[in-house]
Amino acid sequence: MAFETTTQVRFAHVDAAGIVFYPRYFELLNAAVEDWFAQGVGCNFRVMHLDRGIGVPTVHLEVEFLAPSMLGDDLVIRIEPVAVGRSSCTYHATFSGNGEDRIRIVGKLVCMDLAERKSVPWPDDIRERIAPDKVCA
Amino acid sequence: MAFETTTQVRFAHVDAAGIVFYPRYFELLNAAVEDWFAQGVGCNFRVMHLDRGIGVPTVHLEVEFLAPSMLGDDLVIRIEPVAVGRSSCTYHATFSGNGEDRIRIVGKLVCMDLAERKSVPWPDDIRERIAPDKVCA
Amino acid sequence: MAFETTTQVRFAHVDAAGIVFYPRYFELLNAAVEDWFAQGVGCNFRVMHLDRGIGVPTVHLEVEFLAPSMLGDDLVIRIEPVAVGRSSCTYHATFSGNGEDRIRIVGKLVCMDLAERKSVPWPDDIRERIAPDKVCA
Amino acid sequence: MAFETTTQVRFAHVDAAGIVFYPRYFELLNAAVEDWFAQGVGCNFRVMHLDRGIGVPTVHLEVEFLAPSMLGDDLVIRIEPVAVGRSSCTYHATFSGNGEDRIRIVGKLVCMDLAERKSVPWPDDIRERIAPDKVCA
Repeated sequence: MAFETTTQVRFAHVDAAGIVFYPRYFELLNAAVEDWFAQGVGCNFRVMHLDRGIGVPTVHLEVEFLAPSMLGDDLVIRIEPVAVGRSSCTYHATFSGNGEDRIRIVGKLVCMDLAERKSVPWPDDIRERIAPDKVCA
Repeated sequence: MAFETTTQVRFAHVDAAGIVFYPRYFELLNAAVEDWFAQGVGCNFRVMHLDRGIGVPTVHLEVEFLAPSMLGDDLVIRIEPVAVGRSSCTYHATFSGNGEDRIRIVGKLVCMDLAERKSVPWPDDIRERIAPDKVCA
Repeated sequence: MAFETTTQVRFAHVDAAGIVFYPRYFELLNAAVEDWFAQGVGCNFRVMHLDRGIGVPTVHLEVEFLAPSMLGDDLVIRIEPVAVGRSSCTYHATFSGNGEDRIRIVGKLVCMDLAERKSVPWPDDIRERIAPDKVCA
Repeated sequence: MAFETTTQVRFAHVDAAGIVFYPRYFELLNAAVEDWFAQGVGCNFRVMHLDRGIGVPTVHLEVEFLAPSMLGDDLVIRIEPVAVGRSSCTYHATFSGNGEDRIRIVGKLVCMDLAERKSVPWPDDIRERIAPDKVCA
């Protein structure tokens, strides 16, 4: 059930020490979650936000930074949902480069109604495709 | 021993839902850590990076996002070191607005030699001023 | 009629060469325009966007990058409106540090109705306070 | 001699009005220039910065913002060098989506020695491949 995408460390991502400035990892992570929803879950962010009026804000993150990434590195981002609740999804993610894990993340998203700004149950089509085998009762 | 600084939610920080896009919180956190080192610890990032050849990369983060922040919100960022090791510092940080906690962070920095790209002991002057009462044996 | 504000070059703004990465100047410029509207024009971005339903997108920019800015530099940003039309405002802006101009900008904003996504005349209270002496017939 | 690449408007790029926040265009432009140097000119930014000690800072920009871009838009970025001097290169760039030009840019890069922080002549291999037919005497 894991989703994988790749990205490249750009000049915009690195700091004065020549390594990825850590807030940029979260921009890359968010783009990978976009790819996951568009390609894996079948609901892209444009449709989700503009047509369906829902978003998936992050409510929890745990991040280990294991090794630095440098300008030009090709990174593989792997996202694996591990628990899906009524309106939430916990996932594991890793960024790796040259076969080495660079950062490891445990994240939790919730499904939010953008107009009401409160969490709502996942729509059935999304919930079923996030992780059919991980849905909690 | 806590350090406090304030910041404002800018147009650049908010997303299509009008609330702070979470990677921007880490840019704000890093700026607050800069203020802490410059004003509290007595060694600003320019001197630290350019003259002394050390940096303080983040190696661990745990973050709870409790409530959204909106365009124009004034935020108080509070950083409190809770444990200082030979070459690391664990801190608690909160962002609050209108007296309400918005995010809570446990972070860990290490002192890194920029040329060697490996962790080194804190210089004495920095270690003593990060948290004199929290220094581990 | 010029508006001035100050800012500091943060770790987040510099690139691998240790100087401000030019897209970050535009984030700083936008924050300065926010300050100008809040403090000089009397209508902050939160009220403008959320309550009044208007925005001020940039439609034209000319920028000369004269000298680099480094980590820790204190910058003065000066914005001077030079022509105000029915729904537009052309301004000159400079970023300077240590008395030296770093970048010079000619920019043009328009007043946009956010719902209709089209330009609209400046509201009278805003137009009058942007540059009373520069309003074109 | 024009170079083309494509990109997608990400959640990280849009503002509270749901359209691309203009500083993000310059991050996208810089990434396109990176692709151009890596794929078209034959010298990627990692090699250029880390091995050869040169960079290509922007010294001039003129930008017309013609139409907004929205979350999820696929954009084509086209870069065409129009004049190559001893140590500079002027180019035209456009961002387009759905066959419509969104922004038009005239930009000028210079070849900079990173250690000396001053402009230097283009290395021959780069100069010849930027635009063989546009090299000025």
